[in-house]
Amino acid sequence: MANNQTNDFTEWYLQTVQQAELMSYSPVRGSIIFRPDGFELWEHIQEEFNKFLRKEGIRNAYFPMLIPQSFFMKEADHIEGFAPELPWVTEVGNEKLEEPLALRPTSETMIGSAFSDWINSYRDLPYEINQWANVFRWEKKTLPFLRTSEFLWQEGHTAHVDEEDARRRTMRVLDEYARLCEEFLAIPVYKGQKTPSERFAGAVDTYSIEAMMKDGKAVQAGTSHYMGTKFAQAFDITYLNQENQHTLAHTTSWGVSTRLLGSLIMTHGDQNGLVFPPTVAPTQVVLIPVGPWKKNPAIMEKLDEIFATLKQKGIRVRLDDSNNSPGYKFNEWELKGACIRVECGPRDLENGHVMVKMRDLDGKETVKFEDLESYIDEQLQAMTPRLLQAAKERNKANEHYDINTLDELKAHIEKSKAEGKVPGFVLIGWDGTEETEAKIKEETGFTTRNIPFEVPMQKEFDIVSGKPAKHTLWIARAY
Amino acid sequence: MANNQTNDFTEWYLQTVQQAELMSYSPVRGSIIFRPDGFELWEHIQEEFNKFLRKEGIRNAYFPMLIPQSFFMKEADHIEGFAPELPWVTEVGNEKLEEPLALRPTSETMIGSAFSDWINSYRDLPYEINQWANVFRWEKKTLPFLRTSEFLWQEGHTAHVDEEDARRRTMRVLDEYARLCEEFLAIPVYKGQKTPSERFAGAVDTYSIEAMMKDGKAVQAGTSHYMGTKFAQAFDITYLNQENQHTLAHTTSWGVSTRLLGSLIMTHGDQNGLVFPPTVAPTQVVLIPVGPWKKNPAIMEKLDEIFATLKQKGIRVRLDDSNNSPGYKFNEWELKGACIRVECGPRDLENGHVMVKMRDLDGKETVKFEDLESYIDEQLQAMTPRLLQAAKERNKANEHYDINTLDELKAHIEKSKAEGKVPGFVLIGWDGTEETEAKIKEETGFTTRNIPFEVPMQKEFDIVSGKPAKHTLWIARAY
Repeated sequence: MANNQTNDFTEWYLQTVQQAELMSYSPVRGSIIFRPDGFELWEHIQEEFNKFLRKEGIRNAYFPMLIPQSFFMKEADHIEGFAPELPWVTEVGNEKLEEPLALRPTSETMIGSAFSDWINSYRDLPYEINQWANVFRWEKKTLPFLRTSEFLWQEGHTAHVDEEDARRRTMRVLDEYARLCEEFLAIPVYKGQKTPSERFAGAVDTYSIEAMMKDGKAVQAGTSHYMGTKFAQAFDITYLNQENQHTLAHTTSWGVSTRLLGSLIMTHGDQNGLVFPPTVAPTQVVLIPVGPWKKNPAIMEKLDEIFATLKQKGIRVRLDDSNNSPGYKFNEWELKGACIRVECGPRDLENGHVMVKMRDLDGKETVKFEDLESYIDEQLQAMTPRLLQAAKERNKANEHYDINTLDELKAHIEKSKAEGKVPGFVLIGWDGTEETEAKIKEETGFTTRNIPFEVPMQKEFDIVSGKPAKHTLWIARAY
Repeated sequence: MANNQTNDFTEWYLQTVQQAELMSYSPVRGSIIFRPDGFELWEHIQEEFNKFLRKEGIRNAYFPMLIPQSFFMKEADHIEGFAPELPWVTEVGNEKLEEPLALRPTSETMIGSAFSDWINSYRDLPYEINQWANVFRWEKKTLPFLRTSEFLWQEGHTAHVDEEDARRRTMRVLDEYARLCEEFLAIPVYKGQKTPSERFAGAVDTYSIEAMMKDGKAVQAGTSHYMGTKFAQAFDITYLNQENQHTLAHTTSWGVSTRLLGSLIMTHGDQNGLVFPPTVAPTQVVLIPVGPWKKNPAIMEKLDEIFATLKQKGIRVRLDDSNNSPGYKFNEWELKGACIRVECGPRDLENGHVMVKMRDLDGKETVKFEDLESYIDEQLQAMTPRLLQAAKERNKANEHYDINTLDELKAHIEKSKAEGKVPGFVLIGWDGTEETEAKIKEETGFTTRNIPFEVPMQKEFDIVSGKPAKHTLWIARAY
């Protein structure tokens, strides 16, 4: 199996995602192939988030992937933020294009231009659209799922009559992202506001959910932006208000991406491979015949029967009747993150039971044939909150509140390293200056994650300048 | 409303898809915006085809969109076929790429290369993958949905131990495409084999389903290709057979695209706008209060109650309580293709009934409140086969079997025009030469559609050369 998880977490990650066949590298720099088990994780996330969209009356649409250069130029901060990472189509066949076309890194410009056409009156507002799409950002350093040149995401774009309504949408989506991560993916998150230097290019305010991986590093798992009227100005998104006056709309945008797959793996995976909550696991139950099962056809008959029953209930079940040894199969399905393993051999059959192993628990349970169906139902229900609870406890142990100076932070990092612990998330006081952020990053590699909505405790002084703190925020190393 | 459908069908189409808000033009040549009602049609098709994939054990995956130039060069016919239409990424940020990257027009090369890595033994076969993706073909003439520079599709790619197994997959998918069109979309299709000149670039055999639009023109609605070992040779897709010998796999590929949306509209639409089968209609039922309903709150109470009941059953229902007049609403929802319109005014309420209008039938029915739910269920069931039947009858009337020479074909075309009829599909004898195909196209604009599996009658002589016919096939003007 993969490299030791504690020795070199990144190496463990890289080996696991390949060996478990979640992804393959591709011939295009920084782009990966989402293999079926990897892509299926994304399909379950799509399905879950689409439920929220339907409930909110936000409809899916699809916009062109190629964005004319002139569109990008309309919002100055936006082009400045994205320019270095943009791939450009300059030719078709053998002919040069008159205007280069960018591969979308995000669609504010394209959708802003459409909104300008579609929105006329206050009666059209709020105008709320979502898109599932591939996007491109040519990052220098890439990592499967977490940072790839092409990735998949959803991007929601909305226009509103005023700031209040736009901010309500921004927050409501952030709450849903947090719910999606915690209840559905069993990933605890930290909700808060990004500092100005970490804002989305062109946003007035950016809010994020941050997740802590097993190695203590952060992943920005989702963002929701309030744009004010900046994009409305750039793209002329105006409406006639009730007094018949032309008025600028307030817009928002928000997204989660296939980064979530990386977060899933790095939150739950263990030394034996992948661990997934049943909500998204491609294999919820795997049935494995053991002992001299080939000489005893009744074993496969029983397993076929169990398979049919579970399948019929919509459970994602697989039956491994290959020629590999049971031990090999146990390892393989642990690697792939099957939630529940059901074993049945000659003696089990005689005794009218199976042996059941939960992926996230030690030890096996003996379960009678007649109880198996309800046992599996219960375990599929119980596993997701159990994983969330475990992750929360781990996070708690890796949160640090008592670091008040840069020297203390450095000492903490060194001590963690020496003790084989992860440095985790550190709560600091911040005077609101970019100088502090730059200094922390330069000296420790830590970056500001967000200013949490729920501050565990108020910090009084800036960690670098020692001046009175304007905000209390989380810093961490980040993917 | 839109232009007259019989006078200028294309103009009717272009106006209808925009007015009904299925699409908008975009600033990128030949690329369209799929607005929510347009995109939802595609979502329903995806859902339906995914059921088939799941049943067949074919899993979804996602491959990089950018394809290195060198990949295209590996299969000579393939690059020759696609080269003129390929958009190229040549720069990122301000830097030139070492190797240009094409925007995928299809993914045989990318997936072939992955198959080469993943497939080792006969035990790995068949290896069957599907991808939902955006693809790019820079066509000279574009038409919303039917021919756009960027479009959405599914592409299935499979590898097999031998020709027999690969051909079985090719045909099975073609059958499913036909079923999808007929039973799900109510679009009758003609199944058959493409002539060599119309084959997919690199295929050994290409099979298609062809649909006849209301103006008698053909749409190639889906294709399934048997590749032989051509791509296996180009990308080294080999496996160890049971005798431990390296053996070339046989591959297939197959796809349907958002062209299906164009086919839907052009098959069922009428003078009043869109007509959709309930299987895909974004609005299955629309509820409209009529008469002085604002003075009589009990009307809206009743409609709210009906709305809640239908919604709860999963029916896509809308309640139009806007300030527009009933007549305006009737027109708007006919334009948008709502399947069933339910009207309720003061007198209806008194009498305990509603008025119901089916989009595809003349006249209204009176339906008692207590019968409405089951009436709607029945009508939603009945409408799709009814639309299919209507389309089949229209097709039948526009099939021509008695045209034996090019002069007769020209005369037929002129006569049709003079009589305001559509020239439709013409069954001809073909000697198997490209000369005949070229001559027909040059003189009449008709192209060979396919050699049908079920020939209505055998034609003895080639329509151009008069030589004995090798095949009997359909020709038509095509989108």
